[in-house]
Amino acid sequence: MTEAAPATEIVTACVLIIGNEILSGRTQDENIAFLAKGLNEGGVRLREARVIPDDAETIVAAVNEVRRKYNYVFTTGGIGPTHDDITAACIAEAFGVKLILHPEAKRLLEGHYPPGALNEARLRMAHVPEGATLLPNPISRAPGFRIENVFILPGVPQIMQAIFSQLRHTLHGGARVLSRSVSCSLGEGAIANGLTALQDRYADLEIGSYPYFRRADFGTTLVIRGTDQERILAAVDELKTLIRSLGGDPQDGAAEN
Amino acid sequence: MTEAAPATEIVTACVLIIGNEILSGRTQDENIAFLAKGLNEGGVRLREARVIPDDAETIVAAVNEVRRKYNYVFTTGGIGPTHDDITAACIAEAFGVKLILHPEAKRLLEGHYPPGALNEARLRMAHVPEGATLLPNPISRAPGFRIENVFILPGVPQIMQAIFSQLRHTLHGGARVLSRSVSCSLGEGAIANGLTALQDRYADLEIGSYPYFRRADFGTTLVIRGTDQERILAAVDELKTLIRSLGGDPQDGAAEN
Repeated sequence: MTEAAPATEIVTACVLIIGNEILSGRTQDENIAFLAKGLNEGGVRLREARVIPDDAETIVAAVNEVRRKYNYVFTTGGIGPTHDDITAACIAEAFGVKLILHPEAKRLLEGHYPPGALNEARLRMAHVPEGATLLPNPISRAPGFRIENVFILPGVPQIMQAIFSQLRHTLHGGARVLSRSVSCSLGEGAIANGLTALQDRYADLEIGSYPYFRRADFGTTLVIRGTDQERILAAVDELKTLIRSLGGDPQDGAAEN
Repeated sequence: MTEAAPATEIVTACVLIIGNEILSGRTQDENIAFLAKGLNEGGVRLREARVIPDDAETIVAAVNEVRRKYNYVFTTGGIGPTHDDITAACIAEAFGVKLILHPEAKRLLEGHYPPGALNEARLRMAHVPEGATLLPNPISRAPGFRIENVFILPGVPQIMQAIFSQLRHTLHGGARVLSRSVSCSLGEGAIANGLTALQDRYADLEIGSYPYFRRADFGTTLVIRGTDQERILAAVDELKTLIRSLGGDPQDGAAEN
């Protein structure tokens, strides 16, 4: 992201996944993981993700809570043409502004649909809160939009991802979180004491411990995250020494998030 | 679930996914979708899911917020043996009780590990808030636990699922949400107006509209949810008539959530 903040600045984000279909278990969410990676790569730390239903009161309250708490908020879902698409109206209500027909959004939809097909329902997708900026949608034209620090994206993963790819360079990222991982066939409980001591010596880093189970194989992956690459590499060295001292064989992992 | 509530009662739940690895994008969450299905099948409606970091203040605040707002709360993650496993201590703090070594949990771990392997770190997994009830773990023995309306489960999907399967019959379910789905190759925008009218006539049901994209094929899946099977079937009939009137060919879907 181009507009880099000072390397020590911490920039935070929250994702709101809006949709009954996630809460009913019908749809497996993919948007949290995608946005988590995309934001972290740009120095924006995802601090919370919340899945909420297509309910106006809930959406308005959640948006107003998190937009004050985090630097950025990204919503997905609820900006299509049907009766259950209420996100734009809720965002307008949360900001206390009117929902307006955006002339440029209307023009985009007119260019996308055959003559006569831009009916009242589809025109819902050209309505945004007054003062919002459009976020171009290179796939199906109906735009997302931004108002202040809140970005409103569609729920369909391919389209959400395409819009996000075009907006990410506009984000003001802070210190990027780098990470390294090391795996070993030791159980978490075997390495835990040494790991606590390592974490205490590297209080500026975050050491996560994740057990894995693959067929007959199990073990632990340790992920070390932080903003200072040299410190991370030093901690990785100490971690490998710890693993070897316990009879394990440390394996470097692929790039981690 | 055995302890059925009156058919009209609405029983709600919230899921708290605790873990930096979800917020960093390292791990794709699977627990929300699994719990959503399992709860809905038992008449418990998942109303919110929240992903939060391994941060004590955040966990305590979230637990205390949602345990008062919903009938049930399920947490996943953070109950292993390492320094980043802080969920049990946070739950004790949220309830204002002590974290104690549970004799039965200790006995379970003693039976699971070879002599001498139950070190201090692994004994962390036998600590629960005072007053908590253990939730048996048929896979790796370290139990989950319940305190009042909050169920604390591990983050590893296989183990979480095994524990949930053993506790679900203890939940007090309300009116179960049934559903049917119908797909057609019409776009959402083509069917939206008729759908709004249908939703208005069936205000007791919830009609969701979900676009789909598969290779060169696209269309819309409509999901009708409610507690009265007859009303759902009546709405499905009207929906099929609507789709046919617009030139579409309605296809019955598989069982939906």
